[in-house]
Amino acid sequence: MGGDFAPVETVAGAVLAARETDVAVLLVGDPNPLQEQLDAHPGAADLPISVAPSMGVVGEGEQPARALRQKPNASIFVATKLVKEGRAGACVSMGSTGATMAAAAVILGMMEGLERPCLGGPIVGLAPRTIIIDVGTNVDCKPAQLLSFAIIGEVFANQFWHIDRPKVALLSVGSETGKGNKQVRETTELLQASGLNFVGNVEGDDLPAGIVDVVVCDGFAGNVVMKLTEGIGVSLIEHLANAVNGQVTPEAMNLIKGEILKTTNPAQDLGGGPLLGVNGVSIIGHGRADSVEVANAIATAKLALDLGFIERLTERLATVRAVVEIESES
Amino acid sequence: MGGDFAPVETVAGAVLAARETDVAVLLVGDPNPLQEQLDAHPGAADLPISVAPSMGVVGEGEQPARALRQKPNASIFVATKLVKEGRAGACVSMGSTGATMAAAAVILGMMEGLERPCLGGPIVGLAPRTIIIDVGTNVDCKPAQLLSFAIIGEVFANQFWHIDRPKVALLSVGSETGKGNKQVRETTELLQASGLNFVGNVEGDDLPAGIVDVVVCDGFAGNVVMKLTEGIGVSLIEHLANAVNGQVTPEAMNLIKGEILKTTNPAQDLGGGPLLGVNGVSIIGHGRADSVEVANAIATAKLALDLGFIERLTERLATVRAVVEIESES
Repeated sequence: MGGDFAPVETVAGAVLAARETDVAVLLVGDPNPLQEQLDAHPGAADLPISVAPSMGVVGEGEQPARALRQKPNASIFVATKLVKEGRAGACVSMGSTGATMAAAAVILGMMEGLERPCLGGPIVGLAPRTIIIDVGTNVDCKPAQLLSFAIIGEVFANQFWHIDRPKVALLSVGSETGKGNKQVRETTELLQASGLNFVGNVEGDDLPAGIVDVVVCDGFAGNVVMKLTEGIGVSLIEHLANAVNGQVTPEAMNLIKGEILKTTNPAQDLGGGPLLGVNGVSIIGHGRADSVEVANAIATAKLALDLGFIERLTERLATVRAVVEIESES
Repeated sequence: MGGDFAPVETVAGAVLAARETDVAVLLVGDPNPLQEQLDAHPGAADLPISVAPSMGVVGEGEQPARALRQKPNASIFVATKLVKEGRAGACVSMGSTGATMAAAAVILGMMEGLERPCLGGPIVGLAPRTIIIDVGTNVDCKPAQLLSFAIIGEVFANQFWHIDRPKVALLSVGSETGKGNKQVRETTELLQASGLNFVGNVEGDDLPAGIVDVVVCDGFAGNVVMKLTEGIGVSLIEHLANAVNGQVTPEAMNLIKGEILKTTNPAQDLGGGPLLGVNGVSIIGHGRADSVEVANAIATAKLALDLGFIERLTERLATVRAVVEIESES
């Protein structure tokens, strides 16, 4: 029920996914509008799609923790419970990111050593094979949290992009190892002891160049990076339209605009990414997703399950932490 | 003597400045090469330019504090001492930023309440009238430091851009006032008590949109913003060249490249900016500056002196701090 174009596009995406891939879909929401949308798709009755009833939706502006108390049967909470109870393999939502995160944290629970779910991905579209993590709500991170982000990023790059020994770097303000603020200096020690393929610091201008596979940062810096990248794209397109007015053909301008938008606002191209650090697959989709993006998000959920992403990550978090502890004791 | 094209371009820039504006220039450096360069400019002997001898140069890679001990007569240190002794009004350097900062901090001294010199300016070229401060070496800042950055930014926007009551904002990860990390929450209280025109938080995507006049941040975030902006420009130009290959005329492509570079790497367009928070005018020029940029940096130095920037800033720092103290006691 969440997302800007629900239930029309979410149901259409579910139909697309069930038709084209080997998935069964539980549509969680108000049964009447969902059934109405389903009936609009010829042949949908023969697909493995069923409706799981819920009551209400958590809106974008709502405080997630309060919504969890006041609307425990809202669609995102019911959907997440279905995963917890093993009745669904994964949850996919185009709705409020905050509510999806709260539901996952409370209902699925956090992996050991993590305080809040993380968000990460190739947010600087010019580097489509660099995951930057955290870009979400983890601020004032302790070094142990940043170590966890590094492990999550490593497993992500390894599993989704088939990179054997992903290069892991810390975002900082100087390229020399250890240069930066207190958080960076302390985290450097942990990463050096971790056995991860830690290659040192990267700076802001290294991010779009894609020179490493995983960039670890506090959610404060990561969020600034994500939003600044988006903002530069949007403002640059506006600026170019005025600055080269009449000197570039409309066709060329459209082509260039499209490339700028694609490389600075990559979320618009992706169906969604997994919420990281929670005990289960929960895919955060894009609020403005159309049916194709919804189907892509469902495919990402299936891929995460097929890869055993959660199991692999849980195992790797424990292994690396054990290595760091042994190193720090010796 | 500092900068990539010294002494050729620095001397040529000094000649240009002395010829076209009402300034007298002291060229600090090895007398022989300087005189040689001066002699290459017909009529330079009649201009108010003289040579102040120094010994050696601090290179880009050198550790500034060590250089200050080992090469006390290097050009940047002699030039800064001339300002301290009142024999020059301002220092202009195209050399090592670190050495210029160290010289200014040690020789001119810091303004009260500041620990290190700050760097700030319209670093996101899409917003040429938004100063972001600090983008330099101040990391792990205390709220009182961030308050000082806000005051510096206010005086800068007021004096250089003639903005009456500059709008001051804090860089954060949520638009609601106070949302962000611990540093942002604590600084918000100070700014609210300061009497400055504090308008709350801005996020990364607000920076290129230029919606405020002054953006205050820790040097860690500011440096990431500055370098990411530069990096996106450089990588985007490369990406576009490949992505639209053959579909856009070379003329149109050059025009667009030029605009992208100008709006993401604005330092290349500016002669230099004043080092902020030190007791005297010290202009940090661009290492790759040509003669025109050198002359522009000299003009900026003169403007800062004519405006009484240092006096105004010292006074405003004291006034606002007094207001904050009274507020916090009441």
